[in-house]
Amino acid sequence: MKFFQKEIRLPAYERGYHLITSVIEDALPEIKKIGTGQLQVFIKHTSASVTINENADPTVRKDFEVHMNKIVPENMPYYTHIYEGADDMPAHIKASLLGCQVVIPITNGKLNLGTWQGVYLGEHRNYGGKRTLVLTVIGD
Amino acid sequence: MKFFQKEIRLPAYERGYHLITSVIEDALPEIKKIGTGQLQVFIKHTSASVTINENADPTVRKDFEVHMNKIVPENMPYYTHIYEGADDMPAHIKASLLGCQVVIPITNGKLNLGTWQGVYLGEHRNYGGKRTLVLTVIGD
Amino acid sequence: MKFFQKEIRLPAYERGYHLITSVIEDALPEIKKIGTGQLQVFIKHTSASVTINENADPTVRKDFEVHMNKIVPENMPYYTHIYEGADDMPAHIKASLLGCQVVIPITNGKLNLGTWQGVYLGEHRNYGGKRTLVLTVIGD
Repeated sequence: MKFFQKEIRLPAYERGYHLITSVIEDALPEIKKIGTGQLQVFIKHTSASVTINENADPTVRKDFEVHMNKIVPENMPYYTHIYEGADDMPAHIKASLLGCQVVIPITNGKLNLGTWQGVYLGEHRNYGGKRTLVLTVIGD
Repeated sequence: MKFFQKEIRLPAYERGYHLITSVIEDALPEIKKIGTGQLQVFIKHTSASVTINENADPTVRKDFEVHMNKIVPENMPYYTHIYEGADDMPAHIKASLLGCQVVIPITNGKLNLGTWQGVYLGEHRNYGGKRTLVLTVIGD
Repeated sequence: MKFFQKEIRLPAYERGYHLITSVIEDALPEIKKIGTGQLQVFIKHTSASVTINENADPTVRKDFEVHMNKIVPENMPYYTHIYEGADDMPAHIKASLLGCQVVIPITNGKLNLGTWQGVYLGEHRNYGGKRTLVLTVIGD
C-alpha cells in the first residue's frame, strides 16, 4: 500500500472555471505505478473550489461562471462580510456549494475519470492570486 | 488492509432523484468482511450526481427535483452550451452543486450511514441513459 | 498503515453555521502520530451538513445562513415534504448542496488545512438536537 502527498502551487488564474486535470497528472507521475487507488485533490482556500465537470467545451465553464453569479450574486444588501470587496462573500459561498476537494479513483495507473470528466479549479475572487493544492494518493 | 474496486452499470433512470443504496450494497458483498473502512461511490458522468439524503419518504426526492430546477432553471437567456437541449447546461451545474462522489464510512461489515440516510443518484438529463459508477473500498 | 474510526456526539447547536475544527481535533489525539494521511468527517444526518470555510470572521457564518435561506427558501408552494415544519425540506436540500462529509489531508501529525480554513457544522433545522459524526482516519 503506497501513500504519498504533494503540495503544488497553481499559477494565478482569472476569475472563472479552469481545467487543471493535466496540471495534476503532470505533478504525480507516481500514479502510473498505482494499480488500484484514489487521488484526493484538496484546495487550501475558502474562496476557490475544486469540482469535476465537462472537459471539452469551454462554453460549459463560461456558463458556470454566469449562472453561479446568479445563484450567489454580489452586493446583496444583507451581506455583512463585505470589507474585502463585492466578490468576497459570494466567493466563500460558491466555495462551499462546489466544494474544496474531490476524490478520484485510480485504476491501472490512471485517474479513472469518465470520458467527459475533467478537474475544474473554480476561482471565485477577482484577483485570487496563486492557489495551493494538497494532492494525496493512496493505493497499491 | 484490503483495497478493491468495481465498476457497475446502472439501468437508465428517469430524470429525478433515485435511491441506489441497495444496488451498491448488492454489488459489494466484500463489505461484510471489512471491520473499519470506507466506500467511495464515484459517478463517471458530468450530467448526473451522487449525494446522500433522506431514504424513506419519496416526497423528498420529488421536492429535490422541483427545487433544483428553480435553483438551476432551463432556458436562461445567457446559457451558451445549449445545442444538446434545454436540460444540458442545467444538468452540468446540478452535477457540480450536488457532486459526483461520496465517501461512506464502513464499520463492522456495514455502511455506517445514519438511520435516515440513503445514497441518491441524481439524474439531471431527460434521457441520460445508463450511468457508470466506480465503487472503491478500502479497509481492514 | 493505521486505520481507525470514532463516533462523536456533538452538543445541540442552534440553526446556522458553527466552527467545529477544535472539537474534531480534540477527539482525535491519534492524528499527532500520523505522518501522511487523511481524516474524513461524516455526519449521519440528512438535515445538517459538514463543509469547510472561513475560520476567523463570524460574519461569514452569519451571511451563509442568510444567503442559503435565499437559495433554499422555506414555504415554497410546491414543497410536499412539509409535515415536519417549514424548515424540514429546505434543510434536506441544503444538506446535499453543502454535503454530508469532507476529507482533510493529514501532514506531519496535523490537519493540513489552509490558514483560513475551518470545519463548519451546518445546522439546517430550527431544533436539530445533538448530531453524530463518524471520524475516520487513515495514514501512516
